[in-house]
Amino acid sequence: MDRDQLLRELNEFLRIPSVSTLPAHNQDCRAAAEWVAAALRRIGCRDVEFLGSQTHPVVWGKGPDVPGAPTLLIYGHYDVQPPDPLAEWTTPPFEPTQRDGRIYARGAADDKGQVFCLLQAIAASPRPGVNFRFLIEGEEEYGSKVLFDLLKREPQRVRADAVLVADMSYVAPGWPAVYTTLRGLCYAEITVRTSKTDLHSGEYGGAAPNAHEELCRLLGRLKTADGKIHIPGLYGPVKRPSKAELAAWKKLPFNEKDFLTKRVQGKGLVGLKQASVLERLWALPTFEIHGILGGFTGEGAKTVIPAEATAKVSMRLVPNQKLATVERQLVAAVKRFAPKYVTASVRFLHGADPAQIKLNSPAFKLLDQAFKDVTGRGSVPARAGGSIPVVPALASAGAPVILTGIGLPDDRLHAPNEKLELKQLWDGIEVFRRFYELLGSQESGVRSRG
Amino acid sequence: MDRDQLLRELNEFLRIPSVSTLPAHNQDCRAAAEWVAAALRRIGCRDVEFLGSQTHPVVWGKGPDVPGAPTLLIYGHYDVQPPDPLAEWTTPPFEPTQRDGRIYARGAADDKGQVFCLLQAIAASPRPGVNFRFLIEGEEEYGSKVLFDLLKREPQRVRADAVLVADMSYVAPGWPAVYTTLRGLCYAEITVRTSKTDLHSGEYGGAAPNAHEELCRLLGRLKTADGKIHIPGLYGPVKRPSKAELAAWKKLPFNEKDFLTKRVQGKGLVGLKQASVLERLWALPTFEIHGILGGFTGEGAKTVIPAEATAKVSMRLVPNQKLATVERQLVAAVKRFAPKYVTASVRFLHGADPAQIKLNSPAFKLLDQAFKDVTGRGSVPARAGGSIPVVPALASAGAPVILTGIGLPDDRLHAPNEKLELKQLWDGIEVFRRFYELLGSQESGVRSRG
Repeated sequence: MDRDQLLRELNEFLRIPSVSTLPAHNQDCRAAAEWVAAALRRIGCRDVEFLGSQTHPVVWGKGPDVPGAPTLLIYGHYDVQPPDPLAEWTTPPFEPTQRDGRIYARGAADDKGQVFCLLQAIAASPRPGVNFRFLIEGEEEYGSKVLFDLLKREPQRVRADAVLVADMSYVAPGWPAVYTTLRGLCYAEITVRTSKTDLHSGEYGGAAPNAHEELCRLLGRLKTADGKIHIPGLYGPVKRPSKAELAAWKKLPFNEKDFLTKRVQGKGLVGLKQASVLERLWALPTFEIHGILGGFTGEGAKTVIPAEATAKVSMRLVPNQKLATVERQLVAAVKRFAPKYVTASVRFLHGADPAQIKLNSPAFKLLDQAFKDVTGRGSVPARAGGSIPVVPALASAGAPVILTGIGLPDDRLHAPNEKLELKQLWDGIEVFRRFYELLGSQESGVRSRG
Repeated sequence: MDRDQLLRELNEFLRIPSVSTLPAHNQDCRAAAEWVAAALRRIGCRDVEFLGSQTHPVVWGKGPDVPGAPTLLIYGHYDVQPPDPLAEWTTPPFEPTQRDGRIYARGAADDKGQVFCLLQAIAASPRPGVNFRFLIEGEEEYGSKVLFDLLKREPQRVRADAVLVADMSYVAPGWPAVYTTLRGLCYAEITVRTSKTDLHSGEYGGAAPNAHEELCRLLGRLKTADGKIHIPGLYGPVKRPSKAELAAWKKLPFNEKDFLTKRVQGKGLVGLKQASVLERLWALPTFEIHGILGGFTGEGAKTVIPAEATAKVSMRLVPNQKLATVERQLVAAVKRFAPKYVTASVRFLHGADPAQIKLNSPAFKLLDQAFKDVTGRGSVPARAGGSIPVVPALASAGAPVILTGIGLPDDRLHAPNEKLELKQLWDGIEVFRRFYELLGSQESGVRSRG
């Protein structure tokens, strides 16, 4: 395995600005899909197809048939988050740069680096006894609509003995993890309108309503300073983790002070005081504002009272919450909290149900063994704060979904200076190689259906 | 007076996008200054100078000397507000368009149309016995820094027997007005920072602070839903209008329902309930949000917790408030209301002290007479909600400052579809022509100093 050559290949992938949420990058998404297809062919896939979209196709691949061997479906995504704020990147997001044993680029960890790792582990395997299937999509960061449509039309695509999703991280350096839950997502735009057009703040100020002011106040009602979300019914289905799980979390190498100073890099944490930080991150719904549009945001001074303001917001959902219900609850809360003189509306951009996964399949033991063999420590069960929209659908198809990953918690996913540690990459290739080997062995206990 | 020719000349002026607050329009501001200089020369000014700035010069002009005649300083501005939101204009802001007896363009009423009117009234006058001086600036919408610097260096430029400022409107169609106060302005950017970089809302949501959320909450503390501004000390120097003044306002043709349905075009008014709408607009300070920057405001979905958010805000100030004091009070309030884990800062963009003007000079009677002669009704005293930064300095130079105008309250200054009624324009030229004539007559009572 020539590591320089591998890095050249990975850099090629990372250089493609495949930002799925921005239509201007449609052709880049297509280019990233083509990179994935070529990589699949290089590791021996004969059947490689683009499904469902010209610009953001699901790349489907099928490895050589190994009769009687278990079938492993590998899921990943080639799309990435927008890179802004660009000014905060030390080196440009789509010019992958190596320094201090890390590779810096948008997508380095989420998820191109990990997709690369999963594929290279196959290239590094001397004929693993596994029937590989691949679903590498291009809309993970934008709700996975193309993939959802595909799964409705062709559910057989996900028939497998196990599903491997490597879009996560260790819980700490040296601590590999498998995940038992993913939070869901409800992404929306909340718009308020207060007058027909913008108004002169001198002529109207003091008596005419201001859309931004009303929006700020509405957002302040939806979530208060104590971290509580005031959307009626929202917390109803939310269950606290069991005492055993909470106790297990206390043993994880997670330190609130380090989380604040090294990861958040701020002056204080927020959120519901009665819950631990890990509980807030893993087991409670959230409500976040991402940006506010409208009014005047140019240079200098314009003295208008804005007629319309829109907040881009999202909520993370936890097991037992349902996206469709939360959407209804959010609309009802917005209508309830907006004053009568304000026209308020909600538009949903995309979403995902939360996922819950039981670790009772033999496949988990094999991965655990692979981690032990390579890193010296088995995987710990953890929960994930993030979302992968398609996972609930994959899980409901029946096969165990192994949620794991080779990133580290400080990889700065979705943020400037996203990175992947090279040690994690090389270890990761070895971990998955070993996992495929164990899975393909006669004694794996993971039998093929076919 | 060939009206078609006059409209062609005015349209030429209106077509120049002289937006002073946007550096991209520096050359346009210069072009507008050149248009003004040419117009001054056309009406007989021999001394025309550009003072204080290459891009936003004050255009100074001096009419022919008339020994023993009173000196009238005419003030106006050739810069305009930014035109956005562009989509809400029926016809483009810098393509002046006539329909329904109105001319639609950015600057039609504020202030190019009125500057045009003041100059054409001179062109229409057979040798008025007045020494004209002109100060037409290019930064009225951006704090008038160039003009303030000029007045410090060369205070003699404003030496006059009267100052005429036509940047206002009638209080209602058929009701000309002179103004006794102008509100001041304090324009600022309030920035909060909560972490070093943006963070992934899945990984950090629920425990990491969100800059937009903190900013919304801070803004909500600075002004509450009842319309009260919670900046300690702010209301201290604010005096309620006298009973006589409040009683006089009740007789003005102002109707709250019409104000809501025809001018605000919204579903309800806001503000301090104990004050009438006119009192809120004319005699109380305001706090308005103009726009919020930071985070993700592109198309689609990006799930970051923003590290920084900035609100563009401004306050209108009323007589007895001082800009410098209000700036200190705002900074103190921001520090006080921001939580400890938030880094909050305030940057001031520009401002203006409020102005108060006594109507006890003979010049006011002459203008009143001119309005009576032309429109059939004399001027009513009113207050203004808007600001003209340089007026307090002009007033403190000693000569009476006549604040008036020929616009109408629904001209949509600073907003999309700004317009000027042609009737107001033609009447206005005639009103000012008559005013100059009265001022130049032997019996005017407004004597020259020279």
